Amino acid sequence: MPHISLNNDAPGIVGLMLYRPETGRLLNDLADVLMRGENTLSRGERELIATYVSRLNDCHFCGSIHGAVAAQQLPDGMPQVVQACVNPHAANVSPKMRALLDIAALVRESGRAVTEEAVSAAREHGATDMEIHDTVLIAAMFSMFNRYVDGLGTLAPPDQADYEPMAKTIVADGYAGAVHRFAG
Amino acid sequence: MPHISLNNDAPGIVGLMLYRPETGRLLNDLADVLMRGENTLSRGERELIATYVSRLNDCHFCGSIHGAVAAQQLPDGMPQVVQACVNPHAANVSPKMRALLDIAALVRESGRAVTEEAVSAAREHGATDMEIHDTVLIAAMFSMFNRYVDGLGTLAPPDQADYEPMAKTIVADGYAGAVHRFAG
Repeated sequence: MPHISLNNDAPGIVGLMLYRPETGRLLNDLADVLMRGENTLSRGERELIATYVSRLNDCHFCGSIHGAVAAQQLPDGMPQVVQACVNPHAANVSPKMRALLDIAALVRESGRAVTEEAVSAAREHGATDMEIHDTVLIAAMFSMFNRYVDGLGTLAPPDQADYEPMAKTIVADGYAGAVHRFAG
Repeated sequence: MPHISLNNDAPGIVGLMLYRPETGRLLNDLADVLMRGENTLSRGERELIATYVSRLNDCHFCGSIHGAVAAQQLPDGMPQVVQACVNPHAANVSPKMRALLDIAALVRESGRAVTEEAVSAAREHGATDMEIHDTVLIAAMFSMFNRYVDGLGTLAPPDQADYEPMAKTIVADGYAGAVHRFAG
Protein backbone atom coordinates (compact mmCIF):
# COMPACT_ATOMS: atom_id res chain seq x y z
CA MET A 1 0.00 0.00 0.00
CA PRO A 2 1.37 3.44 -0.89
CA HIS A 3 1.77 5.81 2.09
CA ILE A 4 -0.75 8.23 0.55
CA SER A 5 -3.93 7.79 -1.52
CA LEU A 6 -2.93 8.18 -5.16
CA ASN A 7 -6.43 7.61 -6.59
CA ASN A 8 -4.99 5.31 -9.24
CA ASP A 9 -3.55 1.78 -9.40
CA ALA A 10 -0.56 2.49 -11.64
CA PRO A 11 2.69 0.97 -10.28
CA GLY A 12 5.83 2.74 -9.06
CA ILE A 13 6.58 6.23 -10.29
CA VAL A 14 3.75 6.09 -12.85
CA GLY A 15 1.16 6.31 -10.07
CA LEU A 16 3.00 9.31 -8.61
CA MET A 17 3.20 11.06 -11.97
CA LEU A 18 -0.53 10.67 -12.47
CA TYR A 19 -1.17 11.93 -8.91
CA ARG A 20 0.97 15.06 -9.41
CA PRO A 21 1.09 15.74 -13.17
CA GLU A 22 2.75 19.18 -12.80
CA THR A 23 5.96 17.56 -11.53
CA GLY A 24 5.40 14.26 -13.38
CA ARG A 25 5.57 15.95 -16.75
CA LEU A 26 8.92 17.61 -15.97
CA LEU A 27 10.39 14.42 -14.50
CA ASN A 28 9.49 12.59 -17.71
CA ASP A 29 10.90 15.36 -19.88
CA LEU A 30 14.13 15.25 -17.86
CA ALA A 31 14.35 11.47 -18.30
CA ASP A 32 13.71 11.77 -22.04
CA VAL A 33 16.47 14.37 -22.53
CA LEU A 34 19.04 12.64 -20.36
CA MET A 35 18.30 8.97 -21.12
CA ARG A 36 17.16 9.20 -24.76
CA GLY A 37 18.43 12.52 -26.15
CA GLU A 38 21.39 12.80 -28.52
CA ASN A 39 24.46 11.50 -26.72
CA THR A 40 27.77 9.70 -27.32
CA LEU A 41 26.66 7.20 -24.65
CA SER A 42 24.13 4.80 -26.17
CA ARG A 43 20.62 4.59 -24.72
CA GLY A 44 21.45 1.10 -23.47
CA GLU A 45 24.60 2.33 -21.71
CA ARG A 46 22.70 5.15 -19.99
CA GLU A 47 19.95 2.76 -18.90
CA LEU A 48 22.62 0.43 -17.52
CA ILE A 49 23.90 3.27 -15.29
CA ALA A 50 20.32 3.91 -14.12
CA THR A 51 19.74 0.21 -13.42
CA TYR A 52 23.03 -0.17 -11.53
CA VAL A 53 22.23 2.77 -9.23
CA SER A 54 18.66 1.56 -8.69
CA ARG A 55 19.83 -1.96 -7.81
CA LEU A 56 22.43 -0.61 -5.37
CA ASN A 57 19.58 1.41 -3.79
CA ASP A 58 17.45 -1.74 -3.66
CA CYS A 59 14.65 -0.01 -5.57
CA HIS A 60 12.71 -2.91 -7.04
CA PHE A 61 10.48 -0.90 -9.38
CA CYS A 62 13.26 1.26 -10.90
CA GLY A 63 15.75 -1.62 -11.06
CA SER A 64 13.22 -3.83 -12.84
CA ILE A 65 11.85 -1.34 -15.35
CA HIS A 66 15.19 0.25 -16.25
CA GLY A 67 16.82 -3.19 -16.31
CA ALA A 68 14.26 -4.22 -18.92
CA VAL A 69 14.73 -0.99 -20.90
CA ALA A 70 18.53 -1.44 -20.76
CA ALA A 71 18.35 -5.09 -21.83
CA GLN A 72 16.16 -4.25 -24.83
CA GLN A 73 18.76 -1.70 -26.01
CA LEU A 74 22.06 -3.48 -25.26
CA PRO A 75 23.66 -5.97 -27.69
CA ASP A 76 23.85 -8.80 -25.14
CA GLY A 77 20.55 -8.16 -23.39
CA MET A 78 19.58 -9.13 -19.88
CA PRO A 79 22.64 -11.31 -19.04
CA GLN A 80 24.84 -8.25 -19.62
CA VAL A 81 22.61 -6.11 -17.36
CA VAL A 82 22.58 -8.70 -14.58
CA GLN A 83 26.38 -9.22 -14.75
CA ALA A 84 27.06 -5.48 -14.67
CA CYS A 85 24.81 -4.99 -11.66
CA VAL A 86 26.53 -7.80 -9.74
CA ASN A 87 30.06 -6.61 -10.58
CA PRO A 88 30.87 -4.22 -13.43
CA HIS A 89 34.54 -5.28 -13.36
CA ALA A 90 33.69 -8.91 -14.09
CA ALA A 91 31.02 -8.06 -16.67
CA ASN A 92 30.91 -7.90 -20.43
CA VAL A 93 31.12 -4.09 -20.62
CA SER A 94 33.81 -1.77 -21.98
CA PRO A 95 36.58 -0.42 -19.70
CA LYS A 96 35.05 3.05 -20.17
CA MET A 97 31.64 1.82 -18.99
CA ARG A 98 33.26 0.11 -15.98
CA ALA A 99 34.86 3.41 -14.99
CA LEU A 100 31.58 5.29 -15.48
CA LEU A 101 29.69 2.71 -13.40
CA ASP A 102 32.32 3.19 -10.67
CA ILE A 103 31.62 6.95 -10.72
CA ALA A 104 27.86 6.26 -10.59
CA ALA A 105 28.32 4.06 -7.49
CA LEU A 106 30.26 6.86 -5.77
CA VAL A 107 27.59 9.45 -6.65
CA ARG A 108 24.96 7.10 -5.24
CA GLU A 109 26.85 7.05 -1.95
CA SER A 110 27.37 10.83 -1.86
CA GLY A 111 28.43 13.63 -4.18
CA ARG A 112 31.40 14.11 -1.89
CA ALA A 113 32.50 10.49 -2.43
CA VAL A 114 33.50 11.14 -6.07
CA THR A 115 37.29 11.32 -6.33
CA GLU A 116 39.60 12.93 -8.86
CA GLU A 117 41.06 9.40 -9.30
CA ALA A 118 37.70 7.95 -10.34
CA VAL A 119 37.20 10.78 -12.84
CA SER A 120 40.76 10.37 -14.19
CA ALA A 121 40.22 6.62 -14.63
CA ALA A 122 37.15 7.29 -16.77
CA ARG A 123 39.04 9.88 -18.80
CA GLU A 124 41.95 7.48 -19.36
CA HIS A 125 39.49 4.99 -20.85
CA GLY A 126 38.21 7.60 -23.27
CA ALA A 127 35.27 9.20 -21.41
CA THR A 128 34.61 12.81 -22.42
CA ASP A 129 33.73 15.61 -20.00
CA MET A 130 30.12 15.48 -21.20
CA GLU A 131 29.97 11.71 -20.65
CA ILE A 132 31.31 12.16 -17.11
CA HIS A 133 28.78 14.96 -16.53
CA ASP A 134 25.88 12.88 -17.81
CA THR A 135 26.94 9.85 -15.75
CA VAL A 136 26.96 11.97 -12.58
CA LEU A 137 23.58 13.50 -13.41
CA ILE A 138 22.02 10.12 -14.30
CA ALA A 139 23.25 8.63 -11.01
CA ALA A 140 22.00 11.70 -9.13
CA MET A 141 18.63 11.62 -10.93
CA PHE A 142 18.13 7.97 -9.98
CA SER A 143 19.11 8.81 -6.41
CA MET A 144 16.01 11.02 -6.64
CA PHE A 145 13.71 8.61 -8.50
CA ASN A 146 14.55 5.68 -6.18
CA ARG A 147 13.78 7.78 -3.08
CA TYR A 148 10.59 9.15 -4.63
CA VAL A 149 9.28 5.69 -5.56
CA ASP A 150 10.14 3.93 -2.29
CA GLY A 151 9.72 6.95 0.00
CA LEU A 152 6.01 6.94 -0.83
CA GLY A 153 5.77 3.15 -0.63
CA THR A 154 4.47 2.67 -4.18
CA LEU A 155 3.47 -0.71 -5.54
CA ALA A 156 5.97 -2.69 -7.64
CA PRO A 157 5.00 -5.79 -9.64
CA PRO A 158 7.14 -8.70 -8.36
CA ASP A 159 8.34 -10.45 -11.54
CA GLN A 160 10.79 -9.19 -14.16
CA ALA A 161 8.36 -10.37 -16.87
CA ASP A 162 5.77 -7.90 -15.54
CA TYR A 163 7.99 -5.03 -16.70
CA GLU A 164 8.58 -6.13 -20.30
CA PRO A 165 5.46 -4.55 -21.88
CA MET A 166 6.06 -1.18 -20.17
CA ALA A 167 9.74 -1.30 -21.18
CA LYS A 168 8.75 -1.94 -24.82
CA THR A 169 6.50 1.12 -24.72
CA ILE A 170 9.30 3.26 -23.25
CA VAL A 171 11.80 2.05 -25.86
CA ALA A 172 9.32 2.86 -28.63
CA ASP A 173 7.70 6.08 -27.37
CA GLY A 174 9.93 7.53 -24.64
CA TYR A 175 9.11 8.26 -21.02
CA ALA A 176 6.54 11.02 -21.47
CA GLY A 177 4.86 8.97 -24.19
CA ALA A 178 4.79 5.81 -22.06
CA VAL A 179 3.19 7.49 -19.04
CA HIS A 180 0.59 9.00 -21.30
CA ARG A 181 -0.24 5.54 -22.63
CA PHE A 182 -0.27 3.91 -19.22
CA ALA A 183 -2.56 6.62 -17.93
CA GLY A 184 -5.11 5.03 -20.26
CA MET B 1 38.36 22.97 -9.31
CA PRO B 2 35.39 21.19 -10.88
CA HIS B 3 36.12 17.65 -12.12
CA ILE B 4 35.31 18.70 -15.70
CA SER B 5 35.86 21.90 -17.73
CA LEU B 6 32.60 23.86 -17.54
CA ASN B 7 33.81 26.82 -19.65
CA ASN B 8 32.25 29.25 -17.17
CA ASP B 9 33.01 30.50 -13.65
CA ALA B 10 29.46 30.36 -12.23
CA PRO B 11 29.33 28.63 -8.82
CA GLY B 12 27.58 25.39 -7.83
CA ILE B 13 24.71 24.14 -9.91
CA VAL B 14 24.58 27.37 -11.94
CA GLY B 15 27.83 26.45 -13.70
CA LEU B 16 26.41 22.99 -14.50
CA MET B 17 23.17 24.43 -15.83
CA LEU B 18 25.08 26.74 -18.17
CA TYR B 19 27.29 23.82 -19.28
CA ARG B 20 24.31 21.59 -20.10
CA PRO B 21 21.32 23.89 -20.76
CA GLU B 22 19.06 21.08 -22.06
CA THR B 23 18.92 19.51 -18.61
CA GLY B 24 19.49 22.79 -16.72
CA ARG B 25 16.27 24.26 -18.06
CA LEU B 26 14.19 21.28 -16.89
CA LEU B 27 15.87 21.18 -13.47
CA ASN B 28 15.01 24.85 -12.98
CA ASP B 29 11.43 24.34 -14.16
CA LEU B 30 11.11 21.44 -11.71
CA ALA B 31 12.44 23.59 -8.86
CA ASP B 32 10.07 26.43 -9.77
CA VAL B 33 6.99 24.16 -9.77
CA LEU B 34 7.88 22.29 -6.60
CA MET B 35 9.48 25.07 -4.52
CA ARG B 36 7.49 28.09 -5.72
CA GLY B 37 4.27 26.81 -7.32
CA GLU B 38 0.86 26.99 -5.65
CA ASN B 39 1.01 24.94 -2.46
CA THR B 40 -0.39 24.74 1.08
CA LEU B 41 3.24 24.61 2.29
CA SER B 42 4.71 28.12 2.17
CA ARG B 43 7.75 28.82 0.01
CA GLY B 44 9.78 29.32 3.19
CA GLU B 45 8.69 25.94 4.57
CA ARG B 46 9.60 24.16 1.33
CA GLU B 47 13.00 25.87 1.23
CA LEU B 48 13.55 24.81 4.85
CA ILE B 49 13.06 21.17 3.83
CA ALA B 50 15.55 21.67 0.98
CA THR B 51 18.08 23.32 3.29
CA TYR B 52 17.73 20.62 5.94
CA VAL B 53 18.40 17.82 3.44
CA SER B 54 21.31 19.73 1.87
CA ARG B 55 22.91 20.35 5.28
CA LEU B 56 22.52 16.67 6.25
CA ASN B 57 24.25 15.84 2.94
CA ASP B 58 26.99 18.35 3.75
CA CYS B 59 26.41 20.15 0.43
CA HIS B 60 27.82 23.60 1.11
CA PHE B 61 26.51 25.30 -2.04
CA CYS B 62 22.92 24.00 -1.77
CA GLY B 63 22.77 24.43 2.01
CA SER B 64 23.97 28.01 1.74
CA ILE B 65 21.85 29.20 -1.18
CA HIS B 66 18.63 27.46 -0.07
CA GLY B 67 19.28 28.50 3.53
CA ALA B 68 19.39 32.11 2.34
CA VAL B 69 16.26 31.66 0.20
CA ALA B 70 14.46 30.02 3.16
CA ALA B 71 15.53 32.75 5.61
CA GLN B 72 14.27 35.49 3.29
CA GLN B 73 10.84 33.83 3.16
CA LEU B 74 10.35 32.66 6.77
CA PRO B 75 8.95 34.94 9.51
CA ASP B 76 11.91 34.45 11.86
CA GLY B 77 14.64 34.42 9.23
CA MET B 78 18.06 32.82 9.50
CA PRO B 79 17.96 31.91 13.24
CA GLN B 80 14.92 29.74 12.49
CA VAL B 81 16.72 28.06 9.59
CA VAL B 82 19.86 27.39 11.60
CA GLN B 83 17.88 26.00 14.57
CA ALA B 84 15.81 23.72 12.36
CA CYS B 85 18.92 22.34 10.64
CA VAL B 86 20.58 21.59 14.00
CA ASN B 87 17.50 19.94 15.52
CA PRO B 88 13.96 20.40 14.16
CA HIS B 89 12.48 19.17 17.45
CA ALA B 90 14.15 21.95 19.46
CA ALA B 91 13.45 24.61 16.82
CA ASN B 92 10.85 27.30 16.38
CA VAL B 93 8.84 25.39 13.77
CA SER B 94 5.33 23.93 13.86
CA PRO B 95 4.73 20.30 14.94
CA LYS B 96 3.63 19.59 11.36
CA MET B 97 6.90 20.95 9.97
CA ARG B 98 8.87 18.91 12.53
CA ALA B 99 7.13 15.75 11.32
CA LEU B 100 7.73 16.68 7.66
CA LEU B 101 11.41 17.38 8.34
CA ASP B 102 11.62 13.94 9.99
CA ILE B 103 10.22 12.39 6.80
CA ALA B 104 12.71 14.39 4.72
CA ALA B 105 15.61 13.07 6.82
CA LEU B 106 14.42 9.49 6.25
CA VAL B 107 14.09 10.05 2.49
CA ARG B 108 17.61 11.47 2.45
CA GLU B 109 18.85 8.24 4.01
CA SER B 110 16.87 5.98 1.65
CA GLY B 111 13.38 5.74 0.23
CA ARG B 112 13.09 2.45 2.08
CA ALA B 113 13.79 4.17 5.41
CA VAL B 114 10.43 6.00 5.39
CA THR B 115 8.07 4.31 7.85
CA GLU B 116 4.30 4.24 8.12
CA GLU B 117 4.82 5.70 11.63
CA ALA B 118 6.66 8.76 10.30
CA VAL B 119 3.88 9.34 7.76
CA SER B 120 1.18 8.87 10.41
CA ALA B 121 2.91 11.37 12.72
CA ALA B 122 2.83 14.00 9.98
CA ARG B 123 -0.82 13.24 9.28
CA GLU B 124 -1.71 13.52 13.00
CA HIS B 125 -0.21 17.00 12.97
CA GLY B 126 -2.38 18.03 10.04
CA ALA B 127 -0.23 17.23 7.00
CA THR B 128 -2.24 16.42 3.87
CA ASP B 129 -1.40 13.66 1.41
CA MET B 130 -0.16 16.27 -1.06
CA GLU B 131 2.07 17.87 1.58
CA ILE B 132 3.55 14.47 2.41
CA HIS B 133 4.04 13.81 -1.31
CA ASP B 134 5.74 17.14 -1.90
CA THR B 135 7.99 16.70 1.15
CA VAL B 136 9.17 13.32 -0.15
CA LEU B 137 9.75 14.72 -3.64
CA ILE B 138 11.59 17.82 -2.35
CA ALA B 139 13.86 15.63 -0.19
CA ALA B 140 14.42 13.30 -3.16
CA MET B 141 15.09 16.21 -5.53
CA PHE B 142 17.73 17.62 -3.20
CA SER B 143 19.24 14.15 -2.89
CA MET B 144 19.77 14.63 -6.63
CA PHE B 145 20.90 18.28 -6.60
CA ASN B 146 23.40 17.72 -3.75
CA ARG B 147 24.97 14.78 -5.59
CA TYR B 148 25.04 16.66 -8.89
CA VAL B 149 26.74 19.73 -7.36
CA ASP B 150 29.34 17.87 -5.28
CA GLY B 151 29.73 14.86 -7.60
CA LEU B 152 31.22 17.20 -10.20
CA GLY B 153 33.28 19.10 -7.63
CA THR B 154 31.76 22.51 -8.40
CA LEU B 155 32.95 25.70 -6.73
CA ALA B 156 31.03 27.06 -3.73
CA PRO B 157 31.65 30.55 -2.29
CA PRO B 158 32.70 30.11 1.37
CA ASP B 159 30.66 32.73 3.25
CA GLN B 160 26.91 32.84 3.84
CA ALA B 161 26.93 36.53 2.85
CA ASP B 162 28.15 35.52 -0.63
CA TYR B 163 24.77 33.86 -1.25
CA GLU B 164 22.46 36.74 -0.29
CA PRO B 165 22.37 38.52 -3.69
CA MET B 166 21.64 35.29 -5.59
CA ALA B 167 18.97 34.36 -3.03
CA LYS B 168 17.29 37.77 -3.49
CA THR B 169 17.17 37.19 -7.24
CA ILE B 170 15.66 33.72 -6.77
CA VAL B 171 13.03 35.05 -4.33
CA ALA B 172 12.12 37.80 -6.81
CA ASP B 173 12.37 35.99 -10.16
CA GLY B 174 12.34 32.24 -9.48
CA TYR B 175 14.96 29.63 -10.36
CA ALA B 176 14.77 29.74 -14.14
CA GLY B 177 14.77 33.55 -14.00
CA ALA B 178 17.76 33.66 -11.64
CA VAL B 179 19.95 31.36 -13.76
CA HIS B 180 19.11 33.44 -16.81
CA ARG B 181 20.28 36.56 -14.97
CA PHE B 182 23.42 34.94 -13.59
CA ALA B 183 24.30 33.67 -17.04
CA GLY B 184 25.01 37.35 -17.79
